[in-house]
Amino acid sequence: MESSPGNGHVTCGPLLGENDYVLTVGRTFGRSIRRADALCRRASRGLQIAPQIGLKRVPHAHRRSAMPDSSQFNTNRTCPGLWTVTFSNPPINIFAPTTIVELGALMTDLEADPSAKVVVFQSANPDFFIAHLDVSKAAERPEVLGLWRDFVLRVSSAPVVSIAKIRGRTRGIGNEFVLACDMRFAGRQSALFGNPELGVGLVPGGGALEWLPRLVGRSRALEIVLSGDDFDADIAERYGWVNRALDDYDLDSFVDALVRRLASFDREALAAAKAQINRFGMPTATELQSSNDLFFPTLAWPSAQARRAKLRDIGYGVPSDFELNFGRHLPALGRADA
Amino acid sequence: MESSPGNGHVTCGPLLGENDYVLTVGRTFGRSIRRADALCRRASRGLQIAPQIGLKRVPHAHRRSAMPDSSQFNTNRTCPGLWTVTFSNPPINIFAPTTIVELGALMTDLEADPSAKVVVFQSANPDFFIAHLDVSKAAERPEVLGLWRDFVLRVSSAPVVSIAKIRGRTRGIGNEFVLACDMRFAGRQSALFGNPELGVGLVPGGGALEWLPRLVGRSRALEIVLSGDDFDADIAERYGWVNRALDDYDLDSFVDALVRRLASFDREALAAAKAQINRFGMPTATELQSSNDLFFPTLAWPSAQARRAKLRDIGYGVPSDFELNFGRHLPALGRADA
Amino acid sequence: MESSPGNGHVTCGPLLGENDYVLTVGRTFGRSIRRADALCRRASRGLQIAPQIGLKRVPHAHRRSAMPDSSQFNTNRTCPGLWTVTFSNPPINIFAPTTIVELGALMTDLEADPSAKVVVFQSANPDFFIAHLDVSKAAERPEVLGLWRDFVLRVSSAPVVSIAKIRGRTRGIGNEFVLACDMRFAGRQSALFGNPELGVGLVPGGGALEWLPRLVGRSRALEIVLSGDDFDADIAERYGWVNRALDDYDLDSFVDALVRRLASFDREALAAAKAQINRFGMPTATELQSSNDLFFPTLAWPSAQARRAKLRDIGYGVPSDFELNFGRHLPALGRADA
Repeated sequence: MESSPGNGHVTCGPLLGENDYVLTVGRTFGRSIRRADALCRRASRGLQIAPQIGLKRVPHAHRRSAMPDSSQFNTNRTCPGLWTVTFSNPPINIFAPTTIVELGALMTDLEADPSAKVVVFQSANPDFFIAHLDVSKAAERPEVLGLWRDFVLRVSSAPVVSIAKIRGRTRGIGNEFVLACDMRFAGRQSALFGNPELGVGLVPGGGALEWLPRLVGRSRALEIVLSGDDFDADIAERYGWVNRALDDYDLDSFVDALVRRLASFDREALAAAKAQINRFGMPTATELQSSNDLFFPTLAWPSAQARRAKLRDIGYGVPSDFELNFGRHLPALGRADA
Repeated sequence: MESSPGNGHVTCGPLLGENDYVLTVGRTFGRSIRRADALCRRASRGLQIAPQIGLKRVPHAHRRSAMPDSSQFNTNRTCPGLWTVTFSNPPINIFAPTTIVELGALMTDLEADPSAKVVVFQSANPDFFIAHLDVSKAAERPEVLGLWRDFVLRVSSAPVVSIAKIRGRTRGIGNEFVLACDMRFAGRQSALFGNPELGVGLVPGGGALEWLPRLVGRSRALEIVLSGDDFDADIAERYGWVNRALDDYDLDSFVDALVRRLASFDREALAAAKAQINRFGMPTATELQSSNDLFFPTLAWPSAQARRAKLRDIGYGVPSDFELNFGRHLPALGRADA
Repeated sequence: MESSPGNGHVTCGPLLGENDYVLTVGRTFGRSIRRADALCRRASRGLQIAPQIGLKRVPHAHRRSAMPDSSQFNTNRTCPGLWTVTFSNPPINIFAPTTIVELGALMTDLEADPSAKVVVFQSANPDFFIAHLDVSKAAERPEVLGLWRDFVLRVSSAPVVSIAKIRGRTRGIGNEFVLACDMRFAGRQSALFGNPELGVGLVPGGGALEWLPRLVGRSRALEIVLSGDDFDADIAERYGWVNRALDDYDLDSFVDALVRRLASFDREALAAAKAQINRFGMPTATELQSSNDLFFPTLAWPSAQARRAKLRDIGYGVPSDFELNFGRHLPALGRADA
């Protein structure tokens, strides 16, 4: 998406893709949300904006959000009504117990913003949207799965519309994260989805067993969960797992257009329509708790412990072929001599 | 589909596509349904029909139905077991309160016909299947939404199989109309679907919020309803919104073959199987009423009124670029200076 | 799939495709499941196997299972954790009352095997997976439909994962058989699906009316059941009726890889995850009984009897164009002079 001063076509900041420009309004930026709002609207209508208002490409590290960042989530609120939340937990965007705590705090802020209409979740890492849960750390803090269950219910029942823009791998709790979002759009060339728990002797505990059968039907849910394999964006679209697969090149502009469209509508109407649709296809707290309750005992199963013991030496949790191709490596964990 | 006297291949009238022929049996037509029936069967088996029985292309305006037309629905019953209902409310097939009243009367007649097996709904306007509800007129007659809710339940629970053959746009209550039909087949090049209510500050009140999550899943239902955008037939097929998208050229022959097939089966068996399937995926009256109840208060929301006030000057309800590309125009309605 | 001694890539027996090889371990075969297991694992990891261990192509008639065959189901258990069940009831794999009785016995054996993880169902006949129920014989033994309802519930709720690998036609109870399996993979060039009951004046009584609306939505379920037509694998995939359509050439290797993957995981984890997913999308016994109860009265409907009377002379139950293209022939059964 080409953007330059005066051509009137700007992304205006909410979607921090590599090629996005950030609207910087000199020293006034951050002082007057109202003014930034008007500029965004003007620019998005294709009108000229004053040449003294700069559009420059800002290196990611220098980008600033309108609120203090958590350590793993960078939140950008430069366009009114839109929150863009970029997850960054190097090196592979693993979910730790602290991630879940931070995500809960972020939801509290989001719920407290009466102007928020849409939140987009994206990743700073092109290879990993969310790697998976760090199971050993989670085992030490079992209370975070309760927080996670609450997050799933909060984001799916919030008046704010949530959209996952997915590049790279998203597995386990990562898949359960995007399932809890209202919509999912996936990069055809880069996105990979999976719930690999079965391959490490566990059972998904964070919502996959509740969301998937409703979205893709019983038989495809069984294939996804029991195989623990990786599935690409095209299959995910055919199965109804994501709304759509889009070429990676088009993903930003597609989601950007949808997000700005939603943000142009009334918050009350968005919230009312979402609440009506939520009468159908939403897991209940009891259902989610049921898989949550199942998860922790499986951690103690001897076979699961034996499988996980093998993970330590083959690249778990670090940039590695194992993490890139998790699904392919799973059957080896069950072999006596592996 | 080529048809001429003696070649034995006729559409036999139920599907009034532009290129269909109507079987006219001299002066006996209309006098003897039994005789027309036998001719249809003979012709549909590829047998010769007597040369004195003419097959001629009849201009639409001259086509006659076996029962008095309502003012907006032309009903053709020339083939036994089949009702073909063509909606025509120039210039853009808008749904007015009178449309809903007429549709209720049509259902009463259909329910009273013990020989009816299949009803096909189509449009006389190639650009619009059903434009949408005329919201201002509907606001003056709130009771019609109750009639509409009854129609939805009557058509979906009737022993007669209902099929929507869709060319052109069908939005709002138009989309809710086709969702209430048992099956939907859409022209790939011409059909467009959408529920634009969010874009005019409203919430769909006629069944979209109940049918869509069941057919396409929660996330795609949220995308369709919250974006208020137009979706083409291919996306509608991928989402499970319609049974199939077919090339416009093939749509008539495909639906025609299916309809004649269904009409060759026993009414009791069709009704019994439909009733069994209706145990699943059917909205209840209470669910439909819930969105109905939500709809009217939204009409009074100031923001919705402001959006609708802008509609008057930009081509609402008349042949216009606005009506052709409704979805594209919606975001502008929310701009302060639009 | 090429296999020869020493190249280390073997199918290892569970999937008896025409081009599969069977691992024969000299005289030890059958004596030591443990040893065969180790060889399978070794071969599946691409390791060399000793040259004295032969891999030879065994004519189908000579293949032996580890347990006594029933007369219609050949069960192969040469690979640990896997049961491969090949249905063979020449000439067209029709389901007779005895078939249902044998299938019940097979389930009893399967439920009693604590090492079983996966069962694959396939057909020995490339043209017919399962033709359909022999309706006249079933009418004489109404109790078998009760056994059938129990089979549906047993296979779908078993801890063992069931997979249908479908080549050729599968209609009526055949379609209801594959619907009861946990997953369905279909050969793109050969598979055909349908519930033709409506065309012979009946209503599906063995689960189609319960599984289909849940998997494909109400409207596509109505199309499938009410039309009684044949649907190919591509449509079945688009509708969500099968997990995937695969080229016939790739079907064996795809299912083989999935099955060995599943068998490498823990039985407890597979069973626990399946049970959780089974909270959604499973018919209840009461629902299944409801269609079962509907089925028998329809047998006595005069119109259904008239349709079925015509079946006798046109190739029902024998290799014939009628059985190959059942769907196409159905409308003719309703014609007075057919």
